[in-house]
Amino acid sequence: MKILSFRYNDVVSFGPKVKKEEAVWDVLAIQEQLQVLPSFAKTIVEGMTFGFEFVEAARKLVEAAEKSENPADFKRAFTEIEWLAPIPRTTKNIICVGKNYSEHAKEMGGEAPQDIVVFTKAPTAIAADEETLSVHADVTDSLDYEGELAVVIGKKGKNIPKGLAFDYVFGYTIANDITARNLQDKHKQYFLGKSLDGSCPMGPYLVTKDEIPDPQKLTVVTKVNDEVRQNGTTAQMMHTVEDLIVEISSLVTLEPGDVILTGTPAGVGKGMTPPQFLKAGDTVKVSIEGIGTLVNRFE
Amino acid sequence: MKILSFRYNDVVSFGPKVKKEEAVWDVLAIQEQLQVLPSFAKTIVEGMTFGFEFVEAARKLVEAAEKSENPADFKRAFTEIEWLAPIPRTTKNIICVGKNYSEHAKEMGGEAPQDIVVFTKAPTAIAADEETLSVHADVTDSLDYEGELAVVIGKKGKNIPKGLAFDYVFGYTIANDITARNLQDKHKQYFLGKSLDGSCPMGPYLVTKDEIPDPQKLTVVTKVNDEVRQNGTTAQMMHTVEDLIVEISSLVTLEPGDVILTGTPAGVGKGMTPPQFLKAGDTVKVSIEGIGTLVNRFE
Repeated sequence: MKILSFRYNDVVSFGPKVKKEEAVWDVLAIQEQLQVLPSFAKTIVEGMTFGFEFVEAARKLVEAAEKSENPADFKRAFTEIEWLAPIPRTTKNIICVGKNYSEHAKEMGGEAPQDIVVFTKAPTAIAADEETLSVHADVTDSLDYEGELAVVIGKKGKNIPKGLAFDYVFGYTIANDITARNLQDKHKQYFLGKSLDGSCPMGPYLVTKDEIPDPQKLTVVTKVNDEVRQNGTTAQMMHTVEDLIVEISSLVTLEPGDVILTGTPAGVGKGMTPPQFLKAGDTVKVSIEGIGTLVNRFE
Repeated sequence: MKILSFRYNDVVSFGPKVKKEEAVWDVLAIQEQLQVLPSFAKTIVEGMTFGFEFVEAARKLVEAAEKSENPADFKRAFTEIEWLAPIPRTTKNIICVGKNYSEHAKEMGGEAPQDIVVFTKAPTAIAADEETLSVHADVTDSLDYEGELAVVIGKKGKNIPKGLAFDYVFGYTIANDITARNLQDKHKQYFLGKSLDGSCPMGPYLVTKDEIPDPQKLTVVTKVNDEVRQNGTTAQMMHTVEDLIVEISSLVTLEPGDVILTGTPAGVGKGMTPPQFLKAGDTVKVSIEGIGTLVNRFE
């Protein structure tokens, strides 16, 4: 299932895309008006705490809407909604893995680290697909893109064993880990340079894990103004999604709605000769096989 | 006002300490039963979004309880509540400043950085005063304490000007930025080594800013088993509370309930010869003038 989050009439809702239509099923509205289920989650993060029953429940709501007198009452055309990131607000900072592709580590001027490097981005940095983002010219002259596979956690866990890692995954989305290189260097720890407002666009969809049988076989392509800059595959990750869940959860408690950005392949602006940073007017597109394309214009 | 958060009968509540009694006023219960105000916050973080009107409202609730037939109905003895951190769950990771005292930077084996170094701790690491904490012997042999002044933000802000910085402060509390030194080194970025469960005890009280006229004139004393290890003053901070709010908010949007740990003075276990790390049975006490003492035993 491809789920998207959106705002309609000032209410934040979510639901699966309507097949073959540029529209989304408003599952909160279906439940409210048709009372299909004894109860249903109020937010996407709350829903995930029920695991895949949540996906089944959403399916039942859509079926009920399809059979109702006016299915159109529960469809929101993409033109009339404000798109949000699939998880509009995480309850922890976004968990990010640095230098998880060795070619990227090299272009950043070093060797790939043996152990995972983990930093965070503030949830105030979350932005949506198609949202216009600031180049933050007042604080940086070196804003850079990093296209990444994002893993959405669906279940609380600590010390998750390798064989059960995917039980804790709810699905996947696409993220652009936008980074102010000057601030990343200046402040040593990455948090500030990675947390400017709008520096974590995610979307367009959260794709449930059943549709992504192997997250280590996905192409990741980033284009700036239609020029291909990053053309990698998640097969190049040094620490796989499974490894990352095991290693991070050996130290930190993971919770439903947590998002892990799995690192970026080679090809960032800083690695080019000369470096090419983002400027007003640029459009960045990050595409991942089976998920879609995340598009953001800068101004 | 000294505010504390607690759990009573499975409900999370908060309120001011009862004067001269080992008890707290349960302001949520007062409002629910006496309906003193047209409306009142459901959580302490929601309350802070109303600024100091929230403190005034809490005062009115206490007055109403005092004048009620049975004031005792609204008092919870310390023996019958579970203490929580003043902000039981932050909506961002805890924002932490590294090496903000030059003598501490030296004992860690380097010079004090010119620019602020900012990392985060997961909100799943938050613990309460008097809570028994794990030494996490399975993952670290070098757990260390860092006593710190914690600033609680009360108002949303970006690019906060220096002259208005304190308008954005709601109050202060005490934190122990517990750190697994082996993991801090191994993973380069500090997040993992700083985010073990229970590694961010805070409390006992949130003291509103009116009671702390100058946050740069507070002694910070950390004792391990009653041996004084850290004996500093916030006057030694290189970047003051005011500076930190200005600098962090120039990059990241601050929100009500955000907590900023302002760095630790010299005297951590790693800086001793030989280093002295925490072991099961140890008790750490962090005292800050005008706020109180945060006590945690390790097992």
